Amino acid sequence: MDEAGRVKTVGELAALVGGRVSGDAHISIEYVASVGSAGVRAIAFVENRKALEDTQECSASALIVPDGAGERAREVAQKVPAIIEASKPKLAFALIGKILHLQKRREPLIHPTAVIAPSANIALTVYIGPHVSIGENSTIGTGTRIEASVVVGDDVTIGLNCVLQPSVTLYDGVTIGDNVVLHAGVCVGADGFGYVRDDVGYHKFPQIGTAVIEDDVELGAYTCVDRAALGQTRIGRGTKIDNLVHVGHNCDIGERVVIAAQTGISGSVIIEDDAVVGGQVGFGDHVRVQSGAVIGSKAGVLPGKIVRPGVWWGIPIQPLDEYKRLNAHIGRLPQMRAELKELRERIKELEEKLSSS
Amino acid sequence: MDEAGRVKTVGELAALVGGRVSGDAHISIEYVASVGSAGVRAIAFVENRKALEDTQECSASALIVPDGAGERAREVAQKVPAIIEASKPKLAFALIGKILHLQKRREPLIHPTAVIAPSANIALTVYIGPHVSIGENSTIGTGTRIEASVVVGDDVTIGLNCVLQPSVTLYDGVTIGDNVVLHAGVCVGADGFGYVRDDVGYHKFPQIGTAVIEDDVELGAYTCVDRAALGQTRIGRGTKIDNLVHVGHNCDIGERVVIAAQTGISGSVIIEDDAVVGGQVGFGDHVRVQSGAVIGSKAGVLPGKIVRPGVWWGIPIQPLDEYKRLNAHIGRLPQMRAELKELRERIKELEEKLSSS
Amino acid sequence: MDEAGRVKTVGELAALVGGRVSGDAHISIEYVASVGSAGVRAIAFVENRKALEDTQECSASALIVPDGAGERAREVAQKVPAIIEASKPKLAFALIGKILHLQKRREPLIHPTAVIAPSANIALTVYIGPHVSIGENSTIGTGTRIEASVVVGDDVTIGLNCVLQPSVTLYDGVTIGDNVVLHAGVCVGADGFGYVRDDVGYHKFPQIGTAVIEDDVELGAYTCVDRAALGQTRIGRGTKIDNLVHVGHNCDIGERVVIAAQTGISGSVIIEDDAVVGGQVGFGDHVRVQSGAVIGSKAGVLPGKIVRPGVWWGIPIQPLDEYKRLNAHIGRLPQMRAELKELRERIKELEEKLSSS
Repeated sequence: MDEAGRVKTVGELAALVGGRVSGDAHISIEYVASVGSAGVRAIAFVENRKALEDTQECSASALIVPDGAGERAREVAQKVPAIIEASKPKLAFALIGKILHLQKRREPLIHPTAVIAPSANIALTVYIGPHVSIGENSTIGTGTRIEASVVVGDDVTIGLNCVLQPSVTLYDGVTIGDNVVLHAGVCVGADGFGYVRDDVGYHKFPQIGTAVIEDDVELGAYTCVDRAALGQTRIGRGTKIDNLVHVGHNCDIGERVVIAAQTGISGSVIIEDDAVVGGQVGFGDHVRVQSGAVIGSKAGVLPGKIVRPGVWWGIPIQPLDEYKRLNAHIGRLPQMRAELKELRERIKELEEKLSSS
Repeated sequence: MDEAGRVKTVGELAALVGGRVSGDAHISIEYVASVGSAGVRAIAFVENRKALEDTQECSASALIVPDGAGERAREVAQKVPAIIEASKPKLAFALIGKILHLQKRREPLIHPTAVIAPSANIALTVYIGPHVSIGENSTIGTGTRIEASVVVGDDVTIGLNCVLQPSVTLYDGVTIGDNVVLHAGVCVGADGFGYVRDDVGYHKFPQIGTAVIEDDVELGAYTCVDRAALGQTRIGRGTKIDNLVHVGHNCDIGERVVIAAQTGISGSVIIEDDAVVGGQVGFGDHVRVQSGAVIGSKAGVLPGKIVRPGVWWGIPIQPLDEYKRLNAHIGRLPQMRAELKELRERIKELEEKLSSS
Repeated sequence: MDEAGRVKTVGELAALVGGRVSGDAHISIEYVASVGSAGVRAIAFVENRKALEDTQECSASALIVPDGAGERAREVAQKVPAIIEASKPKLAFALIGKILHLQKRREPLIHPTAVIAPSANIALTVYIGPHVSIGENSTIGTGTRIEASVVVGDDVTIGLNCVLQPSVTLYDGVTIGDNVVLHAGVCVGADGFGYVRDDVGYHKFPQIGTAVIEDDVELGAYTCVDRAALGQTRIGRGTKIDNLVHVGHNCDIGERVVIAAQTGISGSVIIEDDAVVGGQVGFGDHVRVQSGAVIGSKAGVLPGKIVRPGVWWGIPIQPLDEYKRLNAHIGRLPQMRAELKELRERIKELEEKLSSS
C-alpha cells in the first residue's frame, strides 16, 4: 500500500530519530525490513539486547539497536556496516518507515464516474476515485483521498488529509476529523440498535443523533460506529481500532484508546483516554472504563460496570491477579476432591475408634 | 438519517399516543430530544418516577411521564410548559419520534449510473441510487429505496417500502419482504459453509437453497444471512438483528426475535418467535431456542441443545440462577481450600489425641 | 447462485462417483435435494443406516445410501425407483451436486461502467461486472469472474477461474491464486494493526508487506485478511474460511485448514495444514497450531501457545477431556460444599466427645 519513497543516508535517518551512528553514516537506505529478510539498502531493528544476539546473519545496511548496545552490535552483526543506537528502537524504526515509505499519493482528481451532489463542497486537492457517491451539502477537506466505491451521505463533513479506503459508508450527518484513516468498508452512522416493544412487536427508538470521528483516528476494515439515538457517538482523537469492531450508539470513546479486532461495545459505553482493550471483548451497555484500564482479549464486562485502572480479565471481568488465582483453584479441584475423600475416611476411622473405645 | 418532518401540537401528539395533557396543549413540537439536551419545541420523556426527579433543569416544551405522575412533573419540571401522561412513556416517545422525524425520503429516480438488467421489474415509485446493479428477472416493489453501490443479483424479489443502505449485496434468488431495512453492507444469500472431506481436500456441499427475509425485519450493518444448502434460510417477520451478526445456512429465525451485535449462528439453528439473544453469543448447529428464552451476551450454546423458556447464561449455557450459584461457589474456592486445610489439621489433632489416649 | 446444469441418468451419476446402482439406472436426474423435499428427477442421500429408516415418504427419483444398505433401502424407500450405494454417500452427493448444478457462468465481458487502468492485464475470457475498479499493473487470469462493485488495487495478481463476489476489496500488491472464491466484501491486504506508542500517542508500525491467497481457497463474506507488516500473510491452498473472520498481519495459515465464522486471529499466528478451528475462537499473537489440532468454538488461545494435535476447548484452551473433567468438578461444587459442612460437623462432634471423655 505504500510506495518506496525517498532515499536517505544512515546519518540523516539517525538525526531524524535522535539516534547515534557508529559505522558508515553515508550509506544510502531505501526501505525498512525485518532482521531476517533485510538486504542491501534496508534498515532493520532489534528491540532489545537478547534479540541482538540473533543478528549474525543479518544483511541489512543498517541496524537500529537500544542505547548502549552499539558496541555489542558491531561484534555480533558483523555484516551490517552501520549501527544506530536509539532509546526506543521500535519507535525509531516506525518513524523511519514513515519517512522511507511514503503513504500512497494520488494526484488530485475527481474521477468522471464519481457522482457528486451539486451542493457538495470539495476542496481543490482532493482525490475522488471511481464510482464514489457524495451527497448534498457534504464537505471534503484538502488533501483527502477517497478510494473507489465509497459512499458519503448528505451533510457529512470530512477533514484534511484523510484516507477513505474502498467501499466505506458514511451515513448522513456524520463528521470525520483530519488525518483519519478509514479502512475498507468502515461504516459510520448506521442506526443504533434500539427498539421499544408493545403488544404487536418492536418500534424503533429514534436514532436521530450523529457520530463524530476525531483527528488522527484509524478504523479497521468493516468496523461499525453507530450514530447516537439522541446526541452523538464519539471516537476520540488518536484512537486506533482494529477490524470488525462494533461501537454502539451513544458510546464515548476517548483519546489514544486502542481496541483490537472483533470487540463489541453496547450502547452508551464510556471508554476514557488511553485505555487498552483486547480483541473479542464484549461490553454491556453503560459501562465506564477508566483511564489506565487494560482489558484482556475475550473478556466480558457486565452492564453498568465501572472498570478501574489496572489489568482485567475473564467473563465477567476480574482483576488479572484474582482471575489467575481463581483459575489456579479451579485447576486444583480434582485434588481438593481427593483430599475431601481422604478426610472423610479418616473421620470415619476416628468415629469407629471412638465408638468402639 | 432522518430529516425533521412535521410540526405537531402537544395535543395532537398526546392524542396520537393515547396520552393525557396537562398544561398548554397548543404548543408546537418539532423534535424529540433527551431531557438534558431538549430545548424549545422539543419533547422529551422520563421512563419512571425516579427519573422524573432529575428534570428540574429540563427546558423541553413538553415532557412525557408515566400515568399518574403528571402532578409531580408540574412540581419538578417547572420550566416545561406541557406534560403528557402516558402508560408507556418510552413507547410514546418512540412513536412521537416516528411522527416528527420522517424517514428520509427520496423522489422516485433511477440514477443514470445504475445498471439494471432489461428483464428486471422495477416499480414506478422506486429510488435507485448511483452505481447500483440489479440483475436479470429481479423485482423491486413500490416505494423501495435502494442507496448507492447496492448489488442485487438475478431472480431477487424485494417488496414494498424497503430501504437498502449502501453496498448491500443480495445474491441470486433471495427474497426480501415489505418494509425491510437492510443497513450498509448487509449480505443475504452467500453460500453456506459446508464441505465434505476426502483424501485430497474439501469438496463443497451443494449450496443451492435460498434465503428469505420477511416483512418488517431490520438487519444491522454487515450482518450476513447465508443461503440454505438445500431448502431455505429464513428471518421471520418483525425480527431485529444488530451489526456484524452471522446467520448460517438453513437457520430458521422466527418472528419478533431480537439478536444483538456479533452473535454467530451455525447451520440449521431454529430460534422460535419472540426469543431474545444478546451480543457475541455463539450457537452450535441444530440448536433449537424455544419461544420465551432469553440468552445473555457472550453465551455459548452447544450443538443440538434445546433451549427452554427462561434466562440463560454462560459457556456452555445454564439457567441464569444456576450460573450465578456456581459462580458464587467458584468465588468461594479460596475459602473452601482454607476450610479444608483447617479440617485436616483438626483431624490430625484428633488422631494424635486418640492414639495417645 | 447456481443454475440447473445438465441432466444425467442415475447410471451416469453412479459411474462418476464410483457407486453401484440397483433399480432403474436410466432415470434422468436434474437436481439434488434433501430426503424430505426431493421430488421427481431429484437425487437425495442418507449418510447412514439410521437415517435410512426415515425415507418411507421420500419421493426422490434416486437415493444414495451407504455401501451394503441397498437392499434395506429398496424395502424402506419404496417410492424411490433407483438406489445408488456409495462408500461415502455425502461425498457422492456433493460431487453429484457439482455436476448437476453448474456454477453460475458469465459470458466474457468487460462491463462499460468498469474502470480499468490502462496498464492492467486482463485475460480474454474474463467477466468484469458493473462498477468494478481495477488498478495499475494488475493482472486478471483466464476464466475469472469479477462481480459488481469489486475494487482491485494496483499491482494485484488474480489467477485463473476465480470468483470475486460483489464489493470485494483487494488492496495494492496482494496475490490471489487459481480457483479462489471470495464472497461478498472480502477484504485482503488492509493494514495490519500495529502501533508504537510514545509520549504523545501512537505511531503506525510499517505495514508494507503483502498478503497471498493460494489456490482453491474460499473466504466467506466480509472476512478480512490483513497484509503483513514486513513479509507476507498467507492463506494456504485449499483452506476454507467462513464469514466475518479476522486474520491478522503476518499470519501463516496452512493448507486445507477449516475456520468457522467470526474467529479472530492475531498477528503472526501459524496454523499448520489440516487444522480445524471452530467459530468465534480467539487467538493471541504468535500462537502455533500444529497439524492435527481441532479447536472447539469460542475457545481462547493465549499468546505464544503451541497447540498440539488433539481436540482443544475452553478459555484458555485445554484438552477437551480435561475441560470436561474440570467442568464436571465445577458442577459438583455445591455438593463439595455440603460435604465440607458435614465433615466439619462430624469433626466437631468427635472433638466434643473426645474432650468430654
